[in-house]
Amino acid sequence: MSNAKDLPIGITMGCPAGVGPEIIVEAFSKHPEWHQRDKIVVFGDEAILRRAMGVTGIELPILDADSPDLGLHLFSVTSLDTGKCPFGKPTRTTGEASYRYIVAAIKAAQEGRIGGIVTAPISKEGLRMAGIHYPGHTEILADHTNTKDYRMMLMGERLKVVLVTIHVALSKVPQAITREKVLDTIVIVNEGLKRDFGIAAPRIAVAGLNPHAGEGGMFGNEETEVIEPAVREARSMGIECSGPYPPDTVFYRALHGEFHVVCAQYHDQGLIPLKLIHFEDGVNVTLNLPIVRTSVDHGTAYDIAGHGLASPTSLVAAVDVAREMMRCRRKHQ
Amino acid sequence: MSNAKDLPIGITMGCPAGVGPEIIVEAFSKHPEWHQRDKIVVFGDEAILRRAMGVTGIELPILDADSPDLGLHLFSVTSLDTGKCPFGKPTRTTGEASYRYIVAAIKAAQEGRIGGIVTAPISKEGLRMAGIHYPGHTEILADHTNTKDYRMMLMGERLKVVLVTIHVALSKVPQAITREKVLDTIVIVNEGLKRDFGIAAPRIAVAGLNPHAGEGGMFGNEETEVIEPAVREARSMGIECSGPYPPDTVFYRALHGEFHVVCAQYHDQGLIPLKLIHFEDGVNVTLNLPIVRTSVDHGTAYDIAGHGLASPTSLVAAVDVAREMMRCRRKHQ
Repeated sequence: MSNAKDLPIGITMGCPAGVGPEIIVEAFSKHPEWHQRDKIVVFGDEAILRRAMGVTGIELPILDADSPDLGLHLFSVTSLDTGKCPFGKPTRTTGEASYRYIVAAIKAAQEGRIGGIVTAPISKEGLRMAGIHYPGHTEILADHTNTKDYRMMLMGERLKVVLVTIHVALSKVPQAITREKVLDTIVIVNEGLKRDFGIAAPRIAVAGLNPHAGEGGMFGNEETEVIEPAVREARSMGIECSGPYPPDTVFYRALHGEFHVVCAQYHDQGLIPLKLIHFEDGVNVTLNLPIVRTSVDHGTAYDIAGHGLASPTSLVAAVDVAREMMRCRRKHQ
Repeated sequence: MSNAKDLPIGITMGCPAGVGPEIIVEAFSKHPEWHQRDKIVVFGDEAILRRAMGVTGIELPILDADSPDLGLHLFSVTSLDTGKCPFGKPTRTTGEASYRYIVAAIKAAQEGRIGGIVTAPISKEGLRMAGIHYPGHTEILADHTNTKDYRMMLMGERLKVVLVTIHVALSKVPQAITREKVLDTIVIVNEGLKRDFGIAAPRIAVAGLNPHAGEGGMFGNEETEVIEPAVREARSMGIECSGPYPPDTVFYRALHGEFHVVCAQYHDQGLIPLKLIHFEDGVNVTLNLPIVRTSVDHGTAYDIAGHGLASPTSLVAAVDVAREMMRCRRKHQ
């Protein structure tokens, strides 16, 4: 990794039957600076990308990853038959392919050939059909980098939220929130915002679980028994965190600059405000991985795949955030 | 009730130790049209309102409710000693007084002397100290009008949300959501938007309870077992409702016009998006009361009471919404 500054970002193409290939091609056509080989490399499939160009009416030269010319630099991982990857549904083939793009990108990052990874959407069902038993990208990345503890941050220019729990039925959320889990979240967020976003002393708000943050135990005691002790412990470690705050106003306060980030206790507590403000340009960041990793904030959108309708806004935002994180990590080292 | 069109709106003064009196005085000074006796009548206390004028530096004539002159028309309910109502904390006296303002306003509405009620904030603790065992305004209004079933709607220009459950610990929410409760909410919302807001065929979105609305039962089954059947039954009654939708995107869709209102399953699911968009100018509406009733969307704010800092924005919005509801009810009859 002689000169980290010049390393490109790797974009994984995602499910070949989803909108990933289209939004990549769209983004390239709108961002000529991506055409340089030291800026972006796509981990994917040439035939699938050509099909996406047909769908979007965009023509770009597809080049080898190390070609000095301008175009879409491809690290070719698969040689798929497009006839076997119809738009709009996952198959064993698409599931396996989407997994291989990620694995190839992780290897490239570990070998210092790329500086970060931006992932286009994959299908859990596709992975399952291919016999690959990860619930999603993040777990693949964590496993391949021996990362035990990580957190999902969703962000845009105006709001950042981190989730203590994610894909959990609401009835299971209260028991899933432990003092340790809240504390670990705060610590990971604090380190992440310092290392990856250059914020010297992050102001971290912790949301309560219950209405009015329990109002002194009247509506639940998770605040007093679990969240408050975690906040106290984090503060004793010198972290500038506070809460638990009433969930219905803490995001407004963060939006207006009082906090850099809000730790949300469950999926919708964090995602409702995030998507309200950053529906189009939200970015998913995995904190605490050794590799910089961001992702689009949407799924494969099978219902519109192949129609040239998907917006590349989130992908472009994800690349911008990854670049900023790479820059901050270099300065932080 | 000879000419409903000319009936004034009654504003109840709320807790004398809170920000209610100040925001009333502030709103009057900014809205000269309120100075007509057929527009606004305040149910409150002269000495407390004079103190609020001192605090805010505003001078207005305080007049009898039926005076033909311009000023703040007061239906005097109490004669409090301001020395016994220090700013910033509820007492037995303030609790009892705030209750009496509401009862007087309800009576005036039932006798056809006012056309609707807008309530300034009271303190639950104050009510309790006075031996008045209602959790809040809404229950007082419901009880005094023999209303069994009602719902809280929070709204602003851009977003309306109605809550299926309200002040419930998150761990108790799943069991509190029944098919009947969801269905009743949809029916009340449908009637309310037709009668009080003049929307002929309200498009009602129903939020799921779980992340991704359960994703086919993967994260909880309340959608398939409780919410979907309620939505189906409401549709069979001719109501234009749909869902359950993934909670993290349904509010964005409503904000952009796809739905008139979202039925949220629990307090923060509805209040987080509402307060993000309408922090300053949110209005609380009680649906299904025989009396038009709106309220400010904030509390007594004891921490700033007496400092002339509280904003009258929500009160003004609450009056505007009440006036619109009165107009729609007249047309609907």
